[in-house]
Amino acid sequence: MKKQSFAPTMKDVAKEAGVALGTVSKVVNGLPVGDSYRVRVEDAIRKLNYQVNSYAQGLKAGKTYTAALLIPNTIDPFFAAVAYHINIALIKRQYRMLLCCTDYDPRQEQEYVVMAQQNKVDGIIGLTYNPGLIVEENTPFVAIDRPMGPKIPCVACDNFGGGQLAAEKLADLGCKHVAFLRVGSSLDNEPNKRKAGFENGCLSRGLSCEMKIINDGAPYEEFETFLSEHIRDGKLAFDGIFCVTDRLAWLVLGTLRRLGQRVPEDVQLIGFDGIRAFGSIDYHCSTIVQPISDIAEMCVDLLLRESALAKPPLVCLPVTYAYGGTTREP
Amino acid sequence: MKKQSFAPTMKDVAKEAGVALGTVSKVVNGLPVGDSYRVRVEDAIRKLNYQVNSYAQGLKAGKTYTAALLIPNTIDPFFAAVAYHINIALIKRQYRMLLCCTDYDPRQEQEYVVMAQQNKVDGIIGLTYNPGLIVEENTPFVAIDRPMGPKIPCVACDNFGGGQLAAEKLADLGCKHVAFLRVGSSLDNEPNKRKAGFENGCLSRGLSCEMKIINDGAPYEEFETFLSEHIRDGKLAFDGIFCVTDRLAWLVLGTLRRLGQRVPEDVQLIGFDGIRAFGSIDYHCSTIVQPISDIAEMCVDLLLRESALAKPPLVCLPVTYAYGGTTREP
Repeated sequence: MKKQSFAPTMKDVAKEAGVALGTVSKVVNGLPVGDSYRVRVEDAIRKLNYQVNSYAQGLKAGKTYTAALLIPNTIDPFFAAVAYHINIALIKRQYRMLLCCTDYDPRQEQEYVVMAQQNKVDGIIGLTYNPGLIVEENTPFVAIDRPMGPKIPCVACDNFGGGQLAAEKLADLGCKHVAFLRVGSSLDNEPNKRKAGFENGCLSRGLSCEMKIINDGAPYEEFETFLSEHIRDGKLAFDGIFCVTDRLAWLVLGTLRRLGQRVPEDVQLIGFDGIRAFGSIDYHCSTIVQPISDIAEMCVDLLLRESALAKPPLVCLPVTYAYGGTTREP
Repeated sequence: MKKQSFAPTMKDVAKEAGVALGTVSKVVNGLPVGDSYRVRVEDAIRKLNYQVNSYAQGLKAGKTYTAALLIPNTIDPFFAAVAYHINIALIKRQYRMLLCCTDYDPRQEQEYVVMAQQNKVDGIIGLTYNPGLIVEENTPFVAIDRPMGPKIPCVACDNFGGGQLAAEKLADLGCKHVAFLRVGSSLDNEPNKRKAGFENGCLSRGLSCEMKIINDGAPYEEFETFLSEHIRDGKLAFDGIFCVTDRLAWLVLGTLRRLGQRVPEDVQLIGFDGIRAFGSIDYHCSTIVQPISDIAEMCVDLLLRESALAKPPLVCLPVTYAYGGTTREP
């Protein structure tokens, strides 16, 4: 068996790739170099099985041991939980975290991306809904829920699988005619896959399914109208409803009660996210739970990985179903 | 009328106080100097009505335009809202914010205090429950809810007034026999004043009041036992209950329903904090609302005030009552 007798160095990589040592250093540290150079360096790194020397890395100038989190706010409990778990994951690794609540303001986001490019922070984890955000592919950036390009890793829960799981649960619990309620986003993002997964689950389990999708910004009352139009002689046409978020499920729960429908006796309801009252008490509804702590760990792990290699463009983490009072007891 | 013809300078202050120019600079910038020196400089500043030159301030070396927030977590919705509003208040002033979720770990807190002393951050806003936290009085630190010493400003809502308001509301809504439920803290903190305010309000409005206070860490079931022991022939001995937080009120609401008590018909319930479901939908219960946005603005304003002067040791901001379904309609 052929075995390398000592570990390859950065010089070996430079020689193999036919580039300057500085170019290898830039690639390893995620700094901008021309595409063709980067490909050659990455090929050489793989060929030689070069391992980055983390100790030497730590000594390089300009390392701030600070990462930034871009998130719309920490008022929404899903965002609040993401901020908490990413903070804890960074602190565990001796990193500090700059928090930037963007309130969906694109200027803030672009400013932090510039900071990362100037090495004022070591990297950014961003949950952003800004379609115009420009992140150059060498910027150390990890996206949550929204793909930002092939070189920027995106971490999300398995949204497709979650939608499918919701349909399967409703089928298991005896539902025949179900509805899917969603506030739609025009942005290409991972949570949009919940719909396709739910449709798929309905199809495979023989559930009839009706969809009501309203645009982001449209009034919630459209769902009330939809539901009340589907009541004949006091009876709702659906025995199961899947809502795209727990927040929507909570609103729908109130509407169903006002319309005289009993939950879960007349109609069972499943949300998505796994939000608990006051952050730690009961679930607000039966729900597909996002693994927020695992998502946070994965984001931080991908961001702080020293090499530009081995950063997958999309990582989907598994969801689970939790009973929260709006379905029949398991 | 005697009028000064031009603005006094830092030199004038040094001369008036009989100290070196550097000492004045330290006091103005909140850096450590001996107590007697600081008092003399502060007296001279007041006497001459010296105004800090903010522009020159901005140019001084070592200014990071970064502040840190110490908070147990962002999972609890009150903490989450505090983090959001402080973040927004800092960003508005072109400051960055380091978030440190402490999970009640004292080591984290002390580490950030050291960073502030070393001017790695310009200051700290801290919501901390760590009785051992040592903050030297010259450290730029603003405390939320817990006094940290006479030189460290503490910002809180008017907890005493809020307790009193809860009693008055219950009286206005027809209650005669009320209870106060509280998870007690052994720490000297501002929210502890809710009890005294409520007692005061009960006294002035002629309400009979019974208290049930359990220690932090004791099981919630003690409240269930207390309530069930006060039911005779299906009737609860109280027609009004004030809970020290909305979180506790939410748990009590569940208990009361399990015990066959109708809220608000049989017993009215008021919580404290003003937490909304999903951060922005309905209140969880009728509640005394903390002005979290005003608290955040005040904290940031006090922290970034250039002079060490005019930082009051305690600022209490007014609360309001909000109807949230667990009292009779207003």
